[in-house]
Amino acid sequence: MSDFSEISFGDNGLVPVITQSVETNEVLMLAYADSTALSLTQKTGLAHYFSRSRNKIWKKGETSGNIQHIHDVRVDCDFDAILYIVSQTNHACHTGKMSCFHHKLEDITSDEL
Amino acid sequence: MSDFSEISFGDNGLVPVITQSVETNEVLMLAYADSTALSLTQKTGLAHYFSRSRNKIWKKGETSGNIQHIHDVRVDCDFDAILYIVSQTNHACHTGKMSCFHHKLEDITSDEL
Repeated sequence: MSDFSEISFGDNGLVPVITQSVETNEVLMLAYADSTALSLTQKTGLAHYFSRSRNKIWKKGETSGNIQHIHDVRVDCDFDAILYIVSQTNHACHTGKMSCFHHKLEDITSDEL
Repeated sequence: MSDFSEISFGDNGLVPVITQSVETNEVLMLAYADSTALSLTQKTGLAHYFSRSRNKIWKKGETSGNIQHIHDVRVDCDFDAILYIVSQTNHACHTGKMSCFHHKLEDITSDEL
């Protein structure tokens, strides 16, 4: 079991995780991990997260098959954000798109002057 | 003033923001924004955040000069995470490195078997 004592987990025990494609550099998704998810990610080489909606560990692609092979795991200067660099099988988003970031902010906002 | 009613801000009124370089595709940092920061980002074309430590709006580079010109702002499928795609002046990290994600997880953890 790894020691993640340097990582600043939030009050909810979670740290935000950015996931980026090693092939295209595209930012695929943002999710959260607890220390168990980080440990499983390190141990298995497959991206694990903690699902806030289901309140449990979530191995990405467990049911969909859209797994993420880990190439690198990075931590930021404040030790409160993580970056998984992965090889994505199929696509990351549940909508079928490669990346979850498929809305442009200007398209979903209206200027009310 | 833009209407950000589709965005899911957390209980603290903040949404996580990933910042990525338009030139290199490097993930530069993760920070947070409230609706005012998002509005200022849209209006000025310069990245604004909400500083949790200083509890106020933070125009990136305000004191350091390391400003971020916005090229695109994206929203994820759940509307609870934002991606700023920017042109970074100088560097993003307060340590002087281009990206804040300069630690490898394996270098800051020790296996305790």
